[in-house]
Formats: sequence, structure tokens, C-alpha cells
Amino acid sequence: MSTPTRTGPTGAMVIGAAPVTGTGDEVRSTDPRTGTALEPGWPAASAGQLDRACALAAEAFPVYRETSPDRRARFLERIATLLDERVDLLVERAHAETALPRPRLTGEVGRTSGQLRLFAEELRTGTWQGARIDPARPARTPSPRADIRQRRIPLGPVAVFGASNFPFAFSTAGGDTASALAAGCPVVVKAHQAHLGTAELVARTVAEAAVDTGMPAGVFAQVVGAGNEIGTRLVSDPRIRAVGFTGSRTGGLAIAAAAAARPVPIPVYAEMSSINPVLLLPDALADRGAELGTAFVGSLTLGAGQFCTNPGLLLAVDGPGLDAFVTAATEAVRGDAGATMLTTGIAGHYAAAGDALAARPGVSELAHGARAGEAAAGSARLLSVPAERFLADPQLQSEVFGATSLLVRCADLGELTAAVAVLEGQLTATVHAGDADHDAARRLLPLLEERAGRILFDGWPTGVEVGHAMVHGGPFPATTDPRSTSVGTLAIERFLRPVAYQDVPQALLPAELADADPHRVWRRTDGRPGRGPVTG
Amino acid sequence: MSTPTRTGPTGAMVIGAAPVTGTGDEVRSTDPRTGTALEPGWPAASAGQLDRACALAAEAFPVYRETSPDRRARFLERIATLLDERVDLLVERAHAETALPRPRLTGEVGRTSGQLRLFAEELRTGTWQGARIDPARPARTPSPRADIRQRRIPLGPVAVFGASNFPFAFSTAGGDTASALAAGCPVVVKAHQAHLGTAELVARTVAEAAVDTGMPAGVFAQVVGAGNEIGTRLVSDPRIRAVGFTGSRTGGLAIAAAAAARPVPIPVYAEMSSINPVLLLPDALADRGAELGTAFVGSLTLGAGQFCTNPGLLLAVDGPGLDAFVTAATEAVRGDAGATMLTTGIAGHYAAAGDALAARPGVSELAHGARAGEAAAGSARLLSVPAERFLADPQLQSEVFGATSLLVRCADLGELTAAVAVLEGQLTATVHAGDADHDAARRLLPLLEERAGRILFDGWPTGVEVGHAMVHGGPFPATTDPRSTSVGTLAIERFLRPVAYQDVPQALLPAELADADPHRVWRRTDGRPGRGPVTG
Repeated sequence: MSTPTRTGPTGAMVIGAAPVTGTGDEVRSTDPRTGTALEPGWPAASAGQLDRACALAAEAFPVYRETSPDRRARFLERIATLLDERVDLLVERAHAETALPRPRLTGEVGRTSGQLRLFAEELRTGTWQGARIDPARPARTPSPRADIRQRRIPLGPVAVFGASNFPFAFSTAGGDTASALAAGCPVVVKAHQAHLGTAELVARTVAEAAVDTGMPAGVFAQVVGAGNEIGTRLVSDPRIRAVGFTGSRTGGLAIAAAAAARPVPIPVYAEMSSINPVLLLPDALADRGAELGTAFVGSLTLGAGQFCTNPGLLLAVDGPGLDAFVTAATEAVRGDAGATMLTTGIAGHYAAAGDALAARPGVSELAHGARAGEAAAGSARLLSVPAERFLADPQLQSEVFGATSLLVRCADLGELTAAVAVLEGQLTATVHAGDADHDAARRLLPLLEERAGRILFDGWPTGVEVGHAMVHGGPFPATTDPRSTSVGTLAIERFLRPVAYQDVPQALLPAELADADPHRVWRRTDGRPGRGPVTG
Repeated sequence: MSTPTRTGPTGAMVIGAAPVTGTGDEVRSTDPRTGTALEPGWPAASAGQLDRACALAAEAFPVYRETSPDRRARFLERIATLLDERVDLLVERAHAETALPRPRLTGEVGRTSGQLRLFAEELRTGTWQGARIDPARPARTPSPRADIRQRRIPLGPVAVFGASNFPFAFSTAGGDTASALAAGCPVVVKAHQAHLGTAELVARTVAEAAVDTGMPAGVFAQVVGAGNEIGTRLVSDPRIRAVGFTGSRTGGLAIAAAAAARPVPIPVYAEMSSINPVLLLPDALADRGAELGTAFVGSLTLGAGQFCTNPGLLLAVDGPGLDAFVTAATEAVRGDAGATMLTTGIAGHYAAAGDALAARPGVSELAHGARAGEAAAGSARLLSVPAERFLADPQLQSEVFGATSLLVRCADLGELTAAVAVLEGQLTATVHAGDADHDAARRLLPLLEERAGRILFDGWPTGVEVGHAMVHGGPFPATTDPRSTSVGTLAIERFLRPVAYQDVPQALLPAELADADPHRVWRRTDGRPGRGPVTG
């Protein structure tokens, strides 16, 4: 890299592992506190520059996919090390661009580097390769069985669209990029306009790690552009083979439509919109209604409510416990100081969407918090509606991105169950249940499973653990593809597909499928999982 | 069942585990030898009858998905037993409807029942559930880790569209139905118009097995209708959650478009078109050119060439070995007696598509076999084209469904590699390689992996083994979704999605995720695969 990443952003993209300045119109990020544009500006990528990023990715693919899992792991680990080393520089710029608190951003860098290290660890286990071996049975009658072996291979170059609300963990080197790189897929990121400087610093770090670990120059690129045009062109490029996206429903659907309209359609993993219902069952409310009310507002207002998993809907059974919940929650919302949101655009949408929800028939406002005096300020808000209205009005399920939640008051468990039954697909569903609620919870669980990617008990949906068992996904419209997750090691499977090898000579087989099993990966031999050589 | 399946077809569909006669226009299958309509006729499903089939499937889903894997295994095994018991009746009707030889059909019934039994076995291993457990770490700093567990659950009711060329193995109770039922998804089949009687006999068998094993009445249905209308309506029904399809590219793309246009889009697994390139490398040709020519025509003409994996394209390096191959293949094609194809429509398309291919610039005909004198007769055909023309003309990759193949003569390995590089997605790619070809094969393998779902050495692509390692799938246009297979145990994953459970009490967890592990399934605990209880 000619420009060391110890310095701040310069207005460059990254193509071919090197900084490249766009030749299009300049794009800038904005300070959400003041609404003023930040320095520097980023000239957008020309069509030729985008083409070059995709061409280099396609050129890198055959080389990169043949790197050993251990070499790819070292690449991911190098990115993690460099991110951690540069945490101060990264946090400072991200703070200026997003107004997210520094401790939160520091934690998010750690989460991002930790995620890269987890994928490195997963790469070395080899389990993700899905190796299966059905050895030949030459003596089988009436016809012999051929030797058939299976593994997963990477799809090809992946386009990644990051999210505004996680400038590290769901952006340039976030979960989509980490899982695609782990799978063996080169990545072309479209930088998020809300944090262009953060995006540049991270992209230069990834490129530096690629050089340090001897990866091909096209393994990673980041382009800049305003509006939807560059994104649509990226998704339509024939060399792109899959898309990872985190953002709005409108944005996700536009990208899915562009991908479906290609001569050769490609998979799109778009994580879009979710209101994350929280069920408050009677015994839990009776036992700790006030405590739940306070804790709920803590989850609601965390990060100005700007989480995909923000609890935007409460389904609760009426009674004294719910009254205590409402009293505590109302008080907490009124006492909330408000916060600066990520962009003035998001703050504007937030206020308008909350007003639209509040104006629906039957909806009343329980509490509205303070509004900080800054350009992109947002304030917490709690609305309420009878279940009867909720059942009749699908508009009440519209996502309000930010710290607004709607309490649906149900007369009894029957009405609460009916409300669950009309829910759209969700990332999460939370149940607060006392011991006496367990039978009701058991009956509700299958309904929740059908509607959500993750089910939590007695907690709050904000906070997505990065591990092997996490699912951050769910039925439409939470995502465009419920068969996957964008967080956790299972995310690598999004960018792989199975290939079978029939009677391929041992010397030509990939190492993980050869009899000798030099990598000692987990494989299913005639269906039985295990490790070690294939024996006659 | 009020009508025992020991009798022949009656003109009924199956809805609610019982025979139901449609109320629409009558549809019939045709004897492909004579072109005359067969008895009886099937009145098509009304909109209300289709609605009822979908409603019953949706009603059955919550019950069926909660059946234990062992109970579902017994259901599949019961279908298998009944199919085997009725093999004579089934084969007789299928022979009348398809003109496929009785021994082939008998074998196909065995393959179909064997496939059902393999899924039953897979169900009992539990590996398909993808269980993962990340136990809580209450002492972790800076924040404790919640207990998170993951398993796969079924998507919901599945629509299945069978293929004309496998009236058992890829039709009513074929691979799509078997894998969907194994996953816990009810199935609604649209009966294939080319073999309505076979479809009815099999559907009644499935319904009878459902009754015998106590499955809910809506777990399986089969509807009848002419043209695309009923299919589009089925795919558009909001209660259908995934689609399995085997057939033409036109049909598959129409279904994929209908699924994408739904308010809630659903996954479509359409296996469509493939020309299954066979690479003949120099040393193999020099060593056994003539032998390969004869064997090739055996694969080409098997089942009148009506296989998804039929070798429709040969890529070969010029030389004396190829001359010997051509001489032997030409002789074998000329000596082929021809065969009756599945329908007069398919025979007509076959002749027209072959003529269109033969008329492309640069294409010459090497041999044309005899044409049987029956209504739907087809004859083997071998065409040839220089590689230069193949590289310039994408139309030369059009599938001709039947026993026609195109030989692409390449001057050298460089030209052969260039021809591989322009190939569309394929179900299979075959390499014939002598020892001296192994270096060339090693360089070609990555190109083939990117373009095909299965790679074979020194064999022929027809004949798809049903096992754990098989992949019958591949990049577009071979399928609409390269991330899966429609044959083999991995096919079950098409109808599942992951769900995570966070801090869910032990008593409410699904058995396969509980600490005690009563089913002893394979699970990944903190990423490590194994079996047995979770220990603190």
C-alpha cells in the first residue's frame, strides 16, 4: 500500500489491493450532530473502475479458492490483528461519522476482529466443507456402485452492501465479508455512504492484510458511489456470483430484483426488516412487571434503537402485571434523554414513520422521550393499541427503525396467540415467561419457530452473539432467504455449493476427499460422521 | 382408502388421503406408440379443490413437523413397502404411458423405494438436523454469554412437479417428495400429464401409507390439471413454502418467476437443462478411442436419450484416437434401432431441436440412426462442429432432449480448454483421461467444478447413484439453485432452515437440543462435532 493506514481517510477506494481515486461525482459523509459534510470527499467509481474491480475479483477467484483453509485463516487473522492495532484511529473516524458512542464502537471493532478469528478457527476444522464419501462397491449386484465423494466449493466473487448501523461488524470487513472470504470468495464491497471514512480505513486494512499474506490483488475491493446506480451495476455484473446485503426492505428488494433479472440469476442474502416481537406472558408480568418495563426500555433505546433486532413490538396479556410494566416503561421512556441517530435521513424517517404509526386507528401514545438538540436527534417513543386493532391492520407491523415500540394489549392468551399468528417473518421473537407460563410457552413455540430465526427466553433481542449456534436471519421480510444466517459460522454456507466427484483418481481428488485424509476433517463415510482415512 | 390400489387407475386425484374426482375439463395421457388417448380420463382440479389441498397441507404441517424422525421414517418405509408390493401393477401402467421398457421401469420402482428407505435411514441418524450448541458462559467478561442452540426446522408445505422421464423416481413419490416428507414438509404434487395413471396409482399408495402410519390427512395430495394454469396457481398459493421441479428450462423459469412474484417469495429448486459435456483427452483416445466410441453411444441412446444427464456434448482433441472414436460411434449410431420416446410432443421437439442444431453454421452430421415406426419414435444422431464455431455460437449449447450429441473437434488442449471455459452450468461433466492426461485433467478440474454439479472420470453421466455423496444439481441453467441437489440425502436440506434458541429452558427445548441428548444425534458443541450429553 502506498498510503499507510496510520493516517486518516484520503478519499480513495480500494481496487487491486491499492488506493484508487474515483473519477465520478464526489460523495461525502455527514456529521449527524451538525448535518455538515465531513472531509474529505470521495469521487465515485466510474463504470470502468467498477468493471476493473469485478475483473480483478474474477481473476483472483481461481487462485484464491485454491489457497488452503489455513492460508485463508491467516489472511483473516491478519485483518483482525491490524483492525485491533488501529482501533483508536478507526473509532475516532466512526464516531465522527455515526455519532455512536466511542465505547460502543471500540466494542464493535473487537466484535469484528473476533468474528474474523472465529471464521479462521472454523476454516481449520474443515467441517464447513461438508465432505462425504460413498466408497465404490464393485461387488454390488445387480450393478456395481461407483466411488462418489462430495465437498462444498465457493460460488465466486461476492458483492457486499454494508449497513449504516454497524460501521464495523456489518460493513466493509463485517460478517458478510468475513464469511465470503472464509468460503474462498473474493469480495467487492460497495462502501456505505454514511461512513465513507471508516469504510476506507477498514478497506485499506483488508488490502494491506491481503498483501501481507500473499493473497491475489483482486481478493478484495471497495467502490464508492451515490444512490442505487452503482449497486445495481455491481449486482448485475456477470462476474458477481452472490450478494450479501444489510439494510432497508426497499434496498434489499431492489437488489433481489436486480439479481433475479440477470441472465444467470444469483443468490441474494438480504437482511432487511424486523420488528422483533416480545411476548410478555401473565406469570412473568405478575412476577416482575415493573422490572421488565425498565429493562425493556434499556433494550429499546440501546444505540438509539438502531438495531435490526430492536424490540419494536410488545404482545402482552392485560392485568395488573402489565399495568406495572407500562408504568415503569412509560417512566423510563419519559426519562430517556434521546440520542443522535446515524444520519439526518434516518432521523427524519424515524420521526415520520413513528408519526405514521401513531396516527393509525386505535393507536395511542403512552410516552415520548426527550429529543436531543442535534441535527439527527431521535427520541424514544412507546405506543399502544388493542389486539383487536392489531389483528385488523397489517400496517401496524411496519418497521420504525429507531427507539419506537408498539404495545399490543391482549385480553388473554387466545388473543395473544392470534396476534402471533398474523406476524410477518422476524429475525427474533422473545418470550418472557414465569414458571406458570411454560405450558402456554410450549404451545406458542412452534408458531414462533415458523416466524423467526431466533427465539429468546427471558432476555432482550438486542445483542447478537457471534458463535456457532447463532442464527441472525429469518423468514421474509426479515430476509430474502430464510435458509441461512448472516452472523455466526453457519454464514459461510451461504457462499458454498456442493460438487460430487465420481471415480476421480486419488491423485486428482481434493485433499479433503482423498482416502488418506491428510487434513483430518470431519467427513461422512457411507453416511457415518467421523475422521481419519478411508479403509477398504 | 375407499378404493384399494390393487386396481388400476380410476381418474381420481388424491386430496385429504382420499380419492377425489376433479370437476374441471378432462385430461388424458397418451400411448406414445400409437398417439391415441388412454383410459380413463382425469377431470382437472377446480380452484376450490386446489385450495382445499393447500389448506389441508397447511393444517397438517404443525402436526406432521412434530412427528418424531422415527415416525416419519416409518411412513417413508411404508410407502416403499407398498410400492414394491405393487410393482407389477405400477410397471404395467407406466409402460403403457411412457413406452419405457418394463425392466427399466421395474428397476426404477426399486430405485424409488430404495430412495425412500435411504431417507428413512438418514432421518434416524439426526445428522440432517444440524444441531449446534454453544453453552452459556456466565463468567465471561466483559459480558456473560447466553446459552444458544441451533437446529433446522422444515419450511412448510412443498409443491412438487415431477418429470416425464422418470415416472417413479422423479415423479409423485420421487426424490423431491421423499426429501420434503423426510424434512417434515407436507407435499402437494401436480401430477405429470404424460403418466396420469402411474401418478394416480403412486399417489393412492402414498395416501394409504399415510393412513397406515397415522399421519395427518393433509400430509400428501396430488392434483391434476392441463397446461400451466394449475401449476402457477399452486406455486402462488400463500400456504406453499417451497417448490421442487424437474423438467424443461421454459417450465422451470416460469415457476421461478411465479415464485419470485409472490408477496412472500419462496425457494424454487428447478432442475432444468444440461448437455453434460464429455471431455475426451488425447491419451484416453489414443489408448481406447474405438472402445469409447461404442460405449458413448450406449450412454447416448439409453432410454432413448431421455435423461437429464444424457451426454449431449463431446469435447475432444483431434488425432487418430478421435478418428477411431468417430468411426466406432458413427457405426453404433447407424446401427441403433431407434426407440419410442415418452410422448409425441417430446418426439416432435426432439426432431425439431436436432434439425435446428444440425442447421447451425459449421455443423455437419456424422450419423443418423434408424427411426422406429411408431408415433413418438426418435432416432440417435451424432453431429460434429469445429471448436472455432462452438466458441463463437452459444446456440450450439442448446439442449436437445433425446439421443442427439454434438462432437466439438478441438485442435489441441488449449482449444478444448477454451471450449470448457464458455460452457453454461451443467449437471455433470465427464473426463476420459489416460495416465498421460492427468496433468491436463488437473488443470481442467477447477473449470469443471465451477460449471458442473458432478464430475466423473472414465465413465458415463447417465445413471445417478442415490447415496449420501451424490450431487444432482449444478449452476444455472442446470438448476435455479446451485446450492443443492435433488438426488441423495443432502436433498433434505433444501426444505429446512436454521432456528436458534437462546436461553430457552431445558424443558421447552426440542429433544435434539436438550442437554441430555436422548436421541444421540450428531451435534456441534462449541463447534466440536460429537455425540452425547452436554456437560458443564
